[in-house]
Amino acid sequence: MNLPTIEDTYAEAFKTKAAHILITAATKRYALIAATEATGFATSFIGCPAEAGIDEYFPPEKTPDNRPGFSVIICQNKTDNLKEQLLERMGQCILTAPTTAVFNLVEDGGDVDNLGFKLAFFADGYQEKIEKYDRQMYKIPVMSGDFLIEENFGITDAVAGGNLFIMAKTQSSALIAAENAVNAIRSVPGVITPFPGGIVASGSKVGSKKYKFMHATTNEKYCPTLKDKVETQLPDDVNGVYEIVFDGLNEEVINEATQKAIDAIKTVPDVVKVSAGNYGGNLGKYKINLIG
Amino acid sequence: MNLPTIEDTYAEAFKTKAAHILITAATKRYALIAATEATGFATSFIGCPAEAGIDEYFPPEKTPDNRPGFSVIICQNKTDNLKEQLLERMGQCILTAPTTAVFNLVEDGGDVDNLGFKLAFFADGYQEKIEKYDRQMYKIPVMSGDFLIEENFGITDAVAGGNLFIMAKTQSSALIAAENAVNAIRSVPGVITPFPGGIVASGSKVGSKKYKFMHATTNEKYCPTLKDKVETQLPDDVNGVYEIVFDGLNEEVINEATQKAIDAIKTVPDVVKVSAGNYGGNLGKYKINLIG
Amino acid sequence: MNLPTIEDTYAEAFKTKAAHILITAATKRYALIAATEATGFATSFIGCPAEAGIDEYFPPEKTPDNRPGFSVIICQNKTDNLKEQLLERMGQCILTAPTTAVFNLVEDGGDVDNLGFKLAFFADGYQEKIEKYDRQMYKIPVMSGDFLIEENFGITDAVAGGNLFIMAKTQSSALIAAENAVNAIRSVPGVITPFPGGIVASGSKVGSKKYKFMHATTNEKYCPTLKDKVETQLPDDVNGVYEIVFDGLNEEVINEATQKAIDAIKTVPDVVKVSAGNYGGNLGKYKINLIG
Amino acid sequence: MNLPTIEDTYAEAFKTKAAHILITAATKRYALIAATEATGFATSFIGCPAEAGIDEYFPPEKTPDNRPGFSVIICQNKTDNLKEQLLERMGQCILTAPTTAVFNLVEDGGDVDNLGFKLAFFADGYQEKIEKYDRQMYKIPVMSGDFLIEENFGITDAVAGGNLFIMAKTQSSALIAAENAVNAIRSVPGVITPFPGGIVASGSKVGSKKYKFMHATTNEKYCPTLKDKVETQLPDDVNGVYEIVFDGLNEEVINEATQKAIDAIKTVPDVVKVSAGNYGGNLGKYKINLIG
Repeated sequence: MNLPTIEDTYAEAFKTKAAHILITAATKRYALIAATEATGFATSFIGCPAEAGIDEYFPPEKTPDNRPGFSVIICQNKTDNLKEQLLERMGQCILTAPTTAVFNLVEDGGDVDNLGFKLAFFADGYQEKIEKYDRQMYKIPVMSGDFLIEENFGITDAVAGGNLFIMAKTQSSALIAAENAVNAIRSVPGVITPFPGGIVASGSKVGSKKYKFMHATTNEKYCPTLKDKVETQLPDDVNGVYEIVFDGLNEEVINEATQKAIDAIKTVPDVVKVSAGNYGGNLGKYKINLIG
Repeated sequence: MNLPTIEDTYAEAFKTKAAHILITAATKRYALIAATEATGFATSFIGCPAEAGIDEYFPPEKTPDNRPGFSVIICQNKTDNLKEQLLERMGQCILTAPTTAVFNLVEDGGDVDNLGFKLAFFADGYQEKIEKYDRQMYKIPVMSGDFLIEENFGITDAVAGGNLFIMAKTQSSALIAAENAVNAIRSVPGVITPFPGGIVASGSKVGSKKYKFMHATTNEKYCPTLKDKVETQLPDDVNGVYEIVFDGLNEEVINEATQKAIDAIKTVPDVVKVSAGNYGGNLGKYKINLIG
Repeated sequence: MNLPTIEDTYAEAFKTKAAHILITAATKRYALIAATEATGFATSFIGCPAEAGIDEYFPPEKTPDNRPGFSVIICQNKTDNLKEQLLERMGQCILTAPTTAVFNLVEDGGDVDNLGFKLAFFADGYQEKIEKYDRQMYKIPVMSGDFLIEENFGITDAVAGGNLFIMAKTQSSALIAAENAVNAIRSVPGVITPFPGGIVASGSKVGSKKYKFMHATTNEKYCPTLKDKVETQLPDDVNGVYEIVFDGLNEEVINEATQKAIDAIKTVPDVVKVSAGNYGGNLGKYKINLIG
Repeated sequence: MNLPTIEDTYAEAFKTKAAHILITAATKRYALIAATEATGFATSFIGCPAEAGIDEYFPPEKTPDNRPGFSVIICQNKTDNLKEQLLERMGQCILTAPTTAVFNLVEDGGDVDNLGFKLAFFADGYQEKIEKYDRQMYKIPVMSGDFLIEENFGITDAVAGGNLFIMAKTQSSALIAAENAVNAIRSVPGVITPFPGGIVASGSKVGSKKYKFMHATTNEKYCPTLKDKVETQLPDDVNGVYEIVFDGLNEEVINEATQKAIDAIKTVPDVVKVSAGNYGGNLGKYKINLIG
């Protein structure tokens, strides 16, 4: 099996703000349902109110209430917008989900949002502040029983825009490689892949050559069907390209995810080349090298 | 097995606006991934930018491009907000998803959004308007190949707020019955269950007794842990309650879904009573009777 | 997109015996769990005690007990072996599964197995024969409640060995096409795809050129990595091949499944050719033409 | 929330033989598909040819070929039967599954089965013995490419029959608790839960009071619907019981799984009592105490 060429370049990532929360439920499946809804419609800052994704599974022995859970990361470039998103996504997608409870996972001494206090107004006066699991919690009576939420949630610095381009002989080969890369990235704690299935079919460039009102448009140099019309960046035998985009709690995990993704891509046949998107360092402060 | 009491009451539903679209992909699984992301963070108008959900599976022989697909319904009370949501959810969650194409399913002569035209600016001049599958389509070159989207999407009247309360001896019995009811509702074409897993753990009343700034608060009369503190509506032996909320393309499908859900609930042991939420007819124009 | 060549040949299928049963449960998910276990280790008569697979989902309104269910088909070439397999798979994989009940779906006047009567000995004298859902049923008290099973299960003639070969430019393209073909085949009521995920990675020829004790060995003429060592049947640009194998209740559904599979394969890029396996008519009595 | 009573008793487990193998594939999902088929129809020695189940997920960095994988455990009381089951399940359910490879995980110096050598006859003379991943492997050309399998697979001693009885106020509460217990048990490396969804709805006693030809019959003392007809072991308020059965590579992991399962059960409301099945020490050599 021929291994793909790894281009000696870097992905350009940038600073963002993130919340890191833990959703537990009566069963693993119900925790996953809540986490999925809470992180939906959150692929890209360009058109979504947040970037969000499921981080990792927490087995019962690692959660405060000894129930299975999933951690999720929700990102926004502005702290105020993040707080608003947190309130809406928790209130609409986690409080409403069967048997859930929700905990803060950010431990550093940064900004804090008293989300539990705010959400507890839903209890219409029947809320109770309690100490439980060595945490300050709010208890909110709901139809299915009591909903428990931690009082304070930390807001932390994070890194958005980790990315890889996977170029393969066929669209399907690029797709299988992309699926495998996403799986590898998701195994790194503290990293999420916010796009559908973690994969971007329509990688974009910043701005537009033709339409001033567009903030992002198709990256034509990587489009297989435009090979004859533009100065293509695609090798001759490449007919399918997928981008993977990932956000993480710090630069280290983005680097780790990048390397694990490349290792995963290498195991899939018919991948020709792996590259990444950058803008000469103008967009973000982090350079994530593909070749360590 | 004792059958639950079906209360002789009605769910109060109201008029909304909806888009009904079809997402196809290379495989059923990729169509589902796109449909899930596109309908995420969309449980309730109260705090989400839309109510949305997956409608039904379309086998290949029923789709324009002969590929497997899922239809989704996206609702908003104002047409302009709906158009904005459509553009963002399609642009961020479907255009970006691997191998997808997207088609309009609304055939009536109402309002139309030329969403395909708008989204095609992403192609930065490389878009092409083509006739294909007997439809006016836009072809947008992207990294994975070409993305196809229909030019016009209809906006139709729809019905939101179909609902049922399931009261059972234990929380788990109410949960299994709720899961079964959601399954039955989802089998009705044209109906969606926008909440996480289709189930609402924290059914609400309109407004608040205590906090003027709250638009919706816990429905304390149906909270098992408040039985001793409020004038409860719960029978003595009820310890768990879940609400099901569903939206549909017209009153008939909401009625059909209601009856199928009740039939499904009846097959689960230990359910005591089924009721529904209404506000004396002040909120919505539709009365969905539980007892036909 | 270039369409694949459909070879003007036929798949050679043969007569077998089948049971067609319906498994219902408290929820759709539990019905699926039971159906999956009951049809496991059942890919091929060559080394498995049966060929079996999930047929279709039955919504609540189409099942005798108004609960969601899945039908499964279990095949064996000898009636006695089929009866033994039925008893073991029902006793070990359905009776043991949470909340299940099981019904007969074969209505023709052929051979009958009083499986319900036999399985009811498990109740150790506490079994009861009852009439319910207009059927003769046995009620078996178990830890979770009562298990209900119909008394008699029909054994019917069926057709095994429907098949297709999918040849593509890359292994991944063949795989995506195979997944899509399986999905299309599964949408035909009365047809199952018994192999893992419905796909055969290691299609075989009957017998062996080298080892007399082998009943089936690799089909070297279709192996991409043997192109240079054997008289290959593979076009130059083919690097991946998957076979799909399917069994059905009659010749008509096998024909329908074949055509739907071919239609599905045509929608996936980079497939070069579609063919099928036959043995000059020596193995089976049915010739399933690829080109209608 | 009231915690269940944990009965001061023990589960009686017994010695068996096991293989422990690792299935890798191009993606996590294909590895799971192969593992599921290979461990199907394998709930209980009473009527199945083996007990088998999925052990744990192996991320790419922990597998020899750097691809995602799942380990499975296959048990049989006799070594010869186990070898036969291994050959059949590997040949029919793993060799046939898309993109798989298979490795041995048993490292102790016990009995060895040269399964790779045997299975390689399928290649009809085109097989090759190679050294790869620091292992002796066989390469078998198949339609989708090359299938790789390790030459030797170890047979190890193992422990079967770990078990728990979960008694709850309603069937649904017992079911949710059982699902949670299974999830906890599955998180222990080296332990499998062979029944459908890991749960036993129809726990049995050894032998029969009434039918000499029956090796196992319903455990009537734990059947809720027989409370009035037998000397019941069920507390008054118990209406649903599920048993969990698990096998493991040694006594330690069975003990660990038991404790984790009990912890998981305690988080689900309306469970009344947890017990286990034993036969006064006559059946097996291991006593797995519920109360450490």
